[in-house]
Amino acid sequence: MDAIEAIKTRRSVRVFQPKPIPKEILEDLIDCARLAPTARGVEPWEFIVVTDPDTRKWIAAKTYFGPFIADAAACVAVLCRETKYYLEDGCAATENILIAARAHGLGSCWVAGDKKPYAPEICQKLGAPPGYRLISLVALGYPAENPQKAKRPLSQVLHWERF
Amino acid sequence: MDAIEAIKTRRSVRVFQPKPIPKEILEDLIDCARLAPTARGVEPWEFIVVTDPDTRKWIAAKTYFGPFIADAAACVAVLCRETKYYLEDGCAATENILIAARAHGLGSCWVAGDKKPYAPEICQKLGAPPGYRLISLVALGYPAENPQKAKRPLSQVLHWERF
Repeated sequence: MDAIEAIKTRRSVRVFQPKPIPKEILEDLIDCARLAPTARGVEPWEFIVVTDPDTRKWIAAKTYFGPFIADAAACVAVLCRETKYYLEDGCAATENILIAARAHGLGSCWVAGDKKPYAPEICQKLGAPPGYRLISLVALGYPAENPQKAKRPLSQVLHWERF
Repeated sequence: MDAIEAIKTRRSVRVFQPKPIPKEILEDLIDCARLAPTARGVEPWEFIVVTDPDTRKWIAAKTYFGPFIADAAACVAVLCRETKYYLEDGCAATENILIAARAHGLGSCWVAGDKKPYAPEICQKLGAPPGYRLISLVALGYPAENPQKAKRPLSQVLHWERF
């Protein structure tokens, strides 16, 4: 899929078909994630791909806005070592996953993440060593809905030269 | 350009040709940015496209790692209202700009940004109202270098089911 099209047509998808994602595609998503920009060349990220239903259900029950993780084909937990720019790095990598997922015909939804009270518990459940932070939980699957959502128009958010 | 190719071949470019970017392309980059995911549907972002050479030189001189902004065709300042997830939202939008730039044959480099002592001064210079934070400064231009940079391999960053 064309890059601009993938970026512009990506929407948060929360309803998925009960169909697994081929391993090669999941690997490609993480390959895209690891090639994100990273401040100072630190690359503090680690990506945990969870397909196990019990673990997905456990995660889904912990989050406030991620119950659909239980029914997704996979959930990628993006973790970063706590560096100065861990959140920027982890978010750039997360966005790469979302766009790549769209290009592969997958739906996705970004679930927080950093600053959530449940974040440390999820890191622990997934076996992360101390010092890592949960940036995002990305639900992934073949879409069973096609959400349309208007956003603030270009004319409102684009400023030439000055705010 | 194919989405996966754009994501995987994007690299930080810091040397640019002295050639302006068509207005339609700059608009398309911001159109991609505004379609990024946003927590709770808040869309706290504003995008200031700076092409004016004097302003670019002023910004370049303020940053520690952005001197090349002076020689870029444009610099996009990504600002967000200070909401709970302003940094996540702003970083997702920034990453969309970088990938879209690559797809349009442009080079780009993400310059911080949030947490930098110079951030408030740049917001003020660009006329932002109080309550906005600088997420990133994106230098843009037709590339005059083709950097290759190895990153941590997939086998090191991808974990199945557990860390």
